[in-house]
Amino acid sequence: MASIPSTGLQLRSLVKKEGTLELSLVTVDVPEPKPEEVIVRVDASPINPSDQGLLFGSADLTKAKASGTAASPVVTATVPPAALKMLAGRLDQSMPVGNEAAGVVVRAGTSPAAQALLGKTVAIVGGGMYTQYRCIKAVQCLVLPPGTTPAEGASWFVNPMTALGMVATMRAEGHKALVHTAAASNLGQMLVKICLKDGVPLVNIVRKAEHVTVLKDIGAAYVCNSTAPSFMDELTEALAATGATIAFDAVGGGKLAGQILTAMEAAINRTAKEYSRYGSTTHKQVYIYGGLDRGPTEFTRTFGQYWGIGGWLLTPFLQKIGFEAAQKLRERVASEIKTTFASTYTKKVTLAEALKLEEIAVYSRQATGEKYLIEPNRGLS
Amino acid sequence: MASIPSTGLQLRSLVKKEGTLELSLVTVDVPEPKPEEVIVRVDASPINPSDQGLLFGSADLTKAKASGTAASPVVTATVPPAALKMLAGRLDQSMPVGNEAAGVVVRAGTSPAAQALLGKTVAIVGGGMYTQYRCIKAVQCLVLPPGTTPAEGASWFVNPMTALGMVATMRAEGHKALVHTAAASNLGQMLVKICLKDGVPLVNIVRKAEHVTVLKDIGAAYVCNSTAPSFMDELTEALAATGATIAFDAVGGGKLAGQILTAMEAAINRTAKEYSRYGSTTHKQVYIYGGLDRGPTEFTRTFGQYWGIGGWLLTPFLQKIGFEAAQKLRERVASEIKTTFASTYTKKVTLAEALKLEEIAVYSRQATGEKYLIEPNRGLS
Repeated sequence: MASIPSTGLQLRSLVKKEGTLELSLVTVDVPEPKPEEVIVRVDASPINPSDQGLLFGSADLTKAKASGTAASPVVTATVPPAALKMLAGRLDQSMPVGNEAAGVVVRAGTSPAAQALLGKTVAIVGGGMYTQYRCIKAVQCLVLPPGTTPAEGASWFVNPMTALGMVATMRAEGHKALVHTAAASNLGQMLVKICLKDGVPLVNIVRKAEHVTVLKDIGAAYVCNSTAPSFMDELTEALAATGATIAFDAVGGGKLAGQILTAMEAAINRTAKEYSRYGSTTHKQVYIYGGLDRGPTEFTRTFGQYWGIGGWLLTPFLQKIGFEAAQKLRERVASEIKTTFASTYTKKVTLAEALKLEEIAVYSRQATGEKYLIEPNRGLS
Repeated sequence: MASIPSTGLQLRSLVKKEGTLELSLVTVDVPEPKPEEVIVRVDASPINPSDQGLLFGSADLTKAKASGTAASPVVTATVPPAALKMLAGRLDQSMPVGNEAAGVVVRAGTSPAAQALLGKTVAIVGGGMYTQYRCIKAVQCLVLPPGTTPAEGASWFVNPMTALGMVATMRAEGHKALVHTAAASNLGQMLVKICLKDGVPLVNIVRKAEHVTVLKDIGAAYVCNSTAPSFMDELTEALAATGATIAFDAVGGGKLAGQILTAMEAAINRTAKEYSRYGSTTHKQVYIYGGLDRGPTEFTRTFGQYWGIGGWLLTPFLQKIGFEAAQKLRERVASEIKTTFASTYTKKVTLAEALKLEEIAVYSRQATGEKYLIEPNRGLS
């Protein structure tokens, strides 16, 4: 085992109370692990949409400014006053960022569980992953199968567990098929593979014609393009064919959630036996789990009275199912990390490169097929 | 017991497939009751918002036309094509209307249960109440306390059971206080009285300054006027004071549902200990149970990820709690019909008067304090 440095770089996000976002790299001590802890050399950590809220603090990135040096860049941007109000709880605190990562255990505490991990490639989750060395409890490490690289294992938690959580939620709430939006994303492709494997009918909604092809190519049966003139008809057909009455929506803003409920109601009413003044008595649900469109959500209530729209998050889902059920899902992810749960990245960057304005301009769009991976130790270890 | 006629008048709503609504009075036979049935002379039946969907079939009432005679009026209006699509299940069927009523049992089947009701003033529910004589099972009749008039007992089900259902839903879903909109309505006033009696904190939202006074006068502690410039501040104060995290909204359209969620989140965050990037972890819920504003519902998601908006209906609530629990609620309504569950009416009309264009113009607005009561047998029995 190579010796490791006593300090490492860490990406930080600071929102000052006067309304300025400041992104920078700071040098932090690599701590001595406690008996039950290990030090993971973070080799790969993705930039997920769910990281960007904390990273950017709703700042206006179109006017971001760069300063500092290439090795120690600083980015500043203005946080609009309305957004600043929502950030009261984090003002003037320099916050580490990054939900999940994979890397190699380079130092271990004295406990047998920690020692057993030395040299292993592990996947971890818990925040502060945009860093060179991350101290974490041994029990929180998921050992990746032999031959798995950190880059292959880095997106092991947020997308895979969310996709598995959607299918589990669908079952728990009594639905037999589901709808997913922004469906050509890494997460969406995982969901296509899970549903094919588990025999769950899935209706995919995408926003570009080329994304229809992406999903058809991996075996998706139903892919509807929301920008096509025939969208509502095609969606209704797919819903009637699958019986899907629950949707997971990554978009959030605009009319899509309401369109899905309207099409569900139309699909159900095709087989209605008699007039019901409150619409069908089948509960229709849309969970908004992302915010690709931060604008207002708007819907016209033309889908009866048996409906719901609400937020969905991975954390409360995992709390609800409990540690053991969640552990089974984690183990499934590990065993299928190169197939069902494989991720692809547009670009791999160092911590310093992640703070270049031209890179931020690309990955902050959160466009499908433009996902970044941070490699905090590339060229350094 | 006076002899009863062999036929009676009944109000009917017909939507023809070419898109015309036709309201009329038809003469129907008064049936011979089966052993377990009774004939109720309907003396009073309210026109609730929940009756008007079936009654008017989304027709454009601003251009309604009157024909027929004063005793046998006919009203016609055009149903817009978009609305017509939603009515496929009822086209070309002449439909009786009216959810609930009260009256006197004037004929009874041979069973002891039916015979025991002869001459009693009873409250009934089940549709087709805008009629002079309604045949119904004895077991479905709720005997009103002695001294209760049919007019006092007519609105015994829809509003009282909905108000009780809201409080029960609040408890069942783990909330400790609730919010109600269009709160100066008959239903809203019942809810104020229930909450005072049961010690449940209630935040009332109204749309007119005079409605604040109406509710304060009957003891409401928190009344916010959504048209006041200080609305959001006042609402947030009331939510912080009560801890209300569930709302029942009769309006549906516009921004109100989202404003309530935003104010709930602001109230919760006043006591937040640390920054949470997904907002507070307290689930906030708005149930839309009415549609006073039929326009689009619009909200900006500035209230974290722990939220839901959905439809709420009395019928599935009653199915969920079961017959015995529902029966207890019905009995409470009967015993408090002149106090907690008292209703007031702007005007009392006959069946024929209910089809006058000038009356329709008033009651179809569904404005607070403009509720009508139909008296199908006034001046006739």
